Amino acid sequence: MTNILVWNEYGNKPAEDAVYPGGLHKAIAAFLQKNKDFSVTTATLDDEGCGLKKETLDKTDVLVYWAHCRHHELPDDVAAAVRDAVHRGMGVVFLHSAHKSKPFMWLTGSSGSLKWREAAERERIWVTDPTHPIAQGLPETFALEHEEMYGEYFDIPKPDSVIFTGWFEGGNVFRSGVTFTRGYGKIFYFQPGHETFGAFYDKNVQKIIENAVRFTKRNVLLTQLDCPNETESKEPIAKKS
Amino acid sequence: MTNILVWNEYGNKPAEDAVYPGGLHKAIAAFLQKNKDFSVTTATLDDEGCGLKKETLDKTDVLVYWAHCRHHELPDDVAAAVRDAVHRGMGVVFLHSAHKSKPFMWLTGSSGSLKWREAAERERIWVTDPTHPIAQGLPETFALEHEEMYGEYFDIPKPDSVIFTGWFEGGNVFRSGVTFTRGYGKIFYFQPGHETFGAFYDKNVQKIIENAVRFTKRNVLLTQLDCPNETESKEPIAKKS
Amino acid sequence: MTNILVWNEYGNKPAEDAVYPGGLHKAIAAFLQKNKDFSVTTATLDDEGCGLKKETLDKTDVLVYWAHCRHHELPDDVAAAVRDAVHRGMGVVFLHSAHKSKPFMWLTGSSGSLKWREAAERERIWVTDPTHPIAQGLPETFALEHEEMYGEYFDIPKPDSVIFTGWFEGGNVFRSGVTFTRGYGKIFYFQPGHETFGAFYDKNVQKIIENAVRFTKRNVLLTQLDCPNETESKEPIAKKS
Amino acid sequence: MTNILVWNEYGNKPAEDAVYPGGLHKAIAAFLQKNKDFSVTTATLDDEGCGLKKETLDKTDVLVYWAHCRHHELPDDVAAAVRDAVHRGMGVVFLHSAHKSKPFMWLTGSSGSLKWREAAERERIWVTDPTHPIAQGLPETFALEHEEMYGEYFDIPKPDSVIFTGWFEGGNVFRSGVTFTRGYGKIFYFQPGHETFGAFYDKNVQKIIENAVRFTKRNVLLTQLDCPNETESKEPIAKKS
Repeated sequence: MTNILVWNEYGNKPAEDAVYPGGLHKAIAAFLQKNKDFSVTTATLDDEGCGLKKETLDKTDVLVYWAHCRHHELPDDVAAAVRDAVHRGMGVVFLHSAHKSKPFMWLTGSSGSLKWREAAERERIWVTDPTHPIAQGLPETFALEHEEMYGEYFDIPKPDSVIFTGWFEGGNVFRSGVTFTRGYGKIFYFQPGHETFGAFYDKNVQKIIENAVRFTKRNVLLTQLDCPNETESKEPIAKKS
Repeated sequence: MTNILVWNEYGNKPAEDAVYPGGLHKAIAAFLQKNKDFSVTTATLDDEGCGLKKETLDKTDVLVYWAHCRHHELPDDVAAAVRDAVHRGMGVVFLHSAHKSKPFMWLTGSSGSLKWREAAERERIWVTDPTHPIAQGLPETFALEHEEMYGEYFDIPKPDSVIFTGWFEGGNVFRSGVTFTRGYGKIFYFQPGHETFGAFYDKNVQKIIENAVRFTKRNVLLTQLDCPNETESKEPIAKKS
Repeated sequence: MTNILVWNEYGNKPAEDAVYPGGLHKAIAAFLQKNKDFSVTTATLDDEGCGLKKETLDKTDVLVYWAHCRHHELPDDVAAAVRDAVHRGMGVVFLHSAHKSKPFMWLTGSSGSLKWREAAERERIWVTDPTHPIAQGLPETFALEHEEMYGEYFDIPKPDSVIFTGWFEGGNVFRSGVTFTRGYGKIFYFQPGHETFGAFYDKNVQKIIENAVRFTKRNVLLTQLDCPNETESKEPIAKKS
Repeated sequence: MTNILVWNEYGNKPAEDAVYPGGLHKAIAAFLQKNKDFSVTTATLDDEGCGLKKETLDKTDVLVYWAHCRHHELPDDVAAAVRDAVHRGMGVVFLHSAHKSKPFMWLTGSSGSLKWREAAERERIWVTDPTHPIAQGLPETFALEHEEMYGEYFDIPKPDSVIFTGWFEGGNVFRSGVTFTRGYGKIFYFQPGHETFGAFYDKNVQKIIENAVRFTKRNVLLTQLDCPNETESKEPIAKKS
């Protein structure tokens, strides 16, 4: 059983509810829990401890994270708890505007800057790493009628894989689906998902998020991450005079 | 002219002075300033503003950074200023125990954990990316008679390049020289350099640090990194009804 | 069911039989076929069509390939058939001296050069990518009492992942377990396995090869690889006067 | 002085001459030789030894290579000589349709497959690795009014860097400027350059090719690439009984 926590800042309630009644976390949880091996819960920024207490994170195999206007409201110690849980093996799927969240910026070490435009323009997504597990079961290309434009230069470290590349009607391109590894945790960032455009109802987007959850799920630690002092060497060291 | 700031926490003064009179920053500055196109200054943790004020960093092309026991004494806002200066294009060369400094951990997004042992054992370094600019002018392998062991697993993101790989007498291996890119800044981490073993007097180590300064020196920004809103699209967008 | 073909040049029969009766392919097949979802067959260079006919390869999900002294006896058209089958999605696990085989050199595009020494020296292997599927279930380090030394510089393209790094008693290091992707095919190269030292009886080596078979197994093609002419554009192109 | 050989198959003479009198190699040589530190010569497929004899290649620091319809006319031994010269340190810049040439496919190990369309459509190129030397001095984006569409999936190994990403009017995206390393040789592939569309007169394209020549120029070998037998170990090996 894979334990999934779908987390939403849920800060633009009326506009978001018009598209996703009860918040987009409900829509994401709904399609994920169709998988019998997934156990899905949800939380929002207004929950106690922001819904991201250390004991919650330690039971979570994959955190799905959406946030936008309220990034600054996430306390530093909570952001640090998310980062440290990823280092210890929790997977994380960052969606859309989460590129400017503290956990994303702190895990990548980058500014997460990108170009953007809200013009409800057409986006076409291409698979650019077809052997990757997250690309399995998808067509080589698909379109989203209306999406917020996110364009290069996207300030991220060189990803492990660039699985999806986006084409926008207005002339921009974007690395729309990318993976990173930090500590024992696997990370996937996916660009579509503006709270008022309905991308989370798209079958291909749903398949990508489901695949990403399977790919990023928790790993078991092989080694401590607290700088172990190996005083006994594994091979003999010549005595120095 | 490349402006270089050699920064040292300088926290283990008597032991360090015995090997490097006045601190290891003096020894590093001394060999770097033999290059006529390098302008070298030094600073330490005890200087005003920790010697790392924003206006200093903005004039610096490459920061060479050594720290060990006093990582926690660097205030968060100073660590953030270093990180942000790297994003804006300042190069940085992290030496030895700087793998646990706030700037290193915040830029890589990782814990920087590694195995270690102080046994003054023999280290042999191999070039594993011979076409990289930092490897030019070096032999394919060289040895350091006494070095602190740093061993895998080294918890860092997949590097852009693994230029040097270390072999230790006691049976360990280590990715001893690695590069990363964050924002517009280039980063080099190099493992040798315990404050009491004299590595910074080694000709090969000196050549590596000189090459690293040339490789990481400041880039000019092509794009803002503050999420520019490109309201005017470069290509026409069809009107939606 | 994963269809696995274990292929051995089988060119040093008496010496190899003394360690692996009937050839090392028999020993590898024996531990792989303990997995109920694996269907394992073997072939050697002296079989008809070298045991690597196109129709055989098209039914194979993963080819495990060992060769050493007889690389030049593999005809170019057979080597090309292996390369093309990998492009179409067949996985391949290259073992030990296969680094100088035509299929390895043609798929990597490199010379495969490395340093070597037959001194039956001790090798210690470290996991350097602990989240990789091929590393799961292994200890952080293990030793092989006697192995042929393969040392850097190993002339290969930058691998997708360096999962294992080897330490040799005589002072060398090696990227001992690495992955590549070519076309739709996944590739794993693993360094231990000299035909007279018995590595394929080691439980950790067996686990690595089993994991590698699961990781590299055949992918389904999403796109043709014959330069499709997309005459109909997916988005409208403005008429040019 | 950097010795550059600009090579053109020159197979579509009348159509090519209408845009580039005397062949596109003349146009490329013309802008390159404005650099006083560049020594530029040209050759074509119809020259003796295809203009690519081993002694010519050994004096060449960077080969700029354009070919399209006559890939099959390059003899295998000449293609092998180019590949081997790259392994020994010669740089190579592959232009446009060279993605299906023998040297490109043999060095990358891939099929080089891509989607294509000749519709004289608009291409817009974005810088996606702004710290790379090949991107220096360029704007963050520029357009080519008419170019042949090359679209993903582009079957190449994961590049060292994806410096440019192309957007096409008809809805496609492409990794338009990518680097690889093979042996001691650096490789740059650049997508624009159909023989009848005039891209080599574009100032940005010229800057990119000039930068690429500087980036890929010959490296000095640090190590033999013929599998040296290191019989004398660098560190002592314990005697085995």
